[in-house]
Amino acid sequence: MSGSPSVDALIEALRILPGVGPKTAQRMAFHLVERNRTGAARLAERLAQALDRVRRCESCRNLSDDPVCALCLDPRRADAPLCVVESPADVAAIEAAHGHRGRYFVLHGHLSPIDGIGPEVLGLDALFAKVASEGVREVIIATNPTVEGEATAHYIATGLQASGVSLSRIAHGVPLGGELEYLDGATLTRALAGRRPL
Amino acid sequence: MSGSPSVDALIEALRILPGVGPKTAQRMAFHLVERNRTGAARLAERLAQALDRVRRCESCRNLSDDPVCALCLDPRRADAPLCVVESPADVAAIEAAHGHRGRYFVLHGHLSPIDGIGPEVLGLDALFAKVASEGVREVIIATNPTVEGEATAHYIATGLQASGVSLSRIAHGVPLGGELEYLDGATLTRALAGRRPL
Repeated sequence: MSGSPSVDALIEALRILPGVGPKTAQRMAFHLVERNRTGAARLAERLAQALDRVRRCESCRNLSDDPVCALCLDPRRADAPLCVVESPADVAAIEAAHGHRGRYFVLHGHLSPIDGIGPEVLGLDALFAKVASEGVREVIIATNPTVEGEATAHYIATGLQASGVSLSRIAHGVPLGGELEYLDGATLTRALAGRRPL
Repeated sequence: MSGSPSVDALIEALRILPGVGPKTAQRMAFHLVERNRTGAARLAERLAQALDRVRRCESCRNLSDDPVCALCLDPRRADAPLCVVESPADVAAIEAAHGHRGRYFVLHGHLSPIDGIGPEVLGLDALFAKVASEGVREVIIATNPTVEGEATAHYIATGLQASGVSLSRIAHGVPLGGELEYLDGATLTRALAGRRPL
């Protein structure tokens, strides 16, 4: 279509990126080979490098270049609560907000029996073992407030009940800057139910 | 930020893609290393391959893997008009519409003295020489209907006047499926001025 089979192959390969359709892929391909060859070469190199180096941290299952990631090795994070999240993007978001001083545990998904995702896929046995062996005192469950995320939170809570660890779930309610008027009913109901004394 | 320096480097490299901001780059990077490693490896390989192979066709300046592109080598296209466009994306769009049976000439831009883009950058001398040497009978100027595109069309028309070649400009008017009510005034004026007898 473009006159160059290599460009056509590149356009097709770019289609795997999330949110990239045929038109965007074509625009990206022309941009890469026409306008920014240096950047394109760097992208190809870093992509190959990331595929070669990135694995899951043996301790928290977050993405890491080393067997155990920097967050898990940081001794200042040892005494704080352990935060359980669904994805590495959640870790990045919480870290960017400087909202948590402890370590993480990344599930890489949520319980979804229909897709064949059970507790073993999410490494929940490893989580329970980690909590027991590392003397974790508090676990914050920060899975998404979706049906599957809530089910996963419930499963984790049940599994940790016997361990005596202090369990908590992140708060759900009105986001800062949000207006009650435009908020959905489910969130409003959760915000009212989760009200805190002043 | 993500816990893996390789992922952070990949996120930064993805930012060169048009329309990709920090959030999208992060989402793409996680998608590539987490969900689609096969596709990511293919993307890295095809990107490197495209950078290695893609050049400009010596005859029409379109992107090509070979010294002269397949469109220029196709003998069935020899007798039809030559279409002058601003970018390889324009060639792809016209080819996808099956709207042109002849060859192309790609300017890779438009005249823009303020950015230092003069006739020599656009290969206009090569275009004039090509028209003269290849016995082209008609030239269709399909630059964009912007100020720069119109100026470029005017420059090409002036340069080809003496050659005796038949010159035309693509029509500008109401797009099919468009409604007069929502069209800008400039396009409407052009549509009225360019009316054709029934």
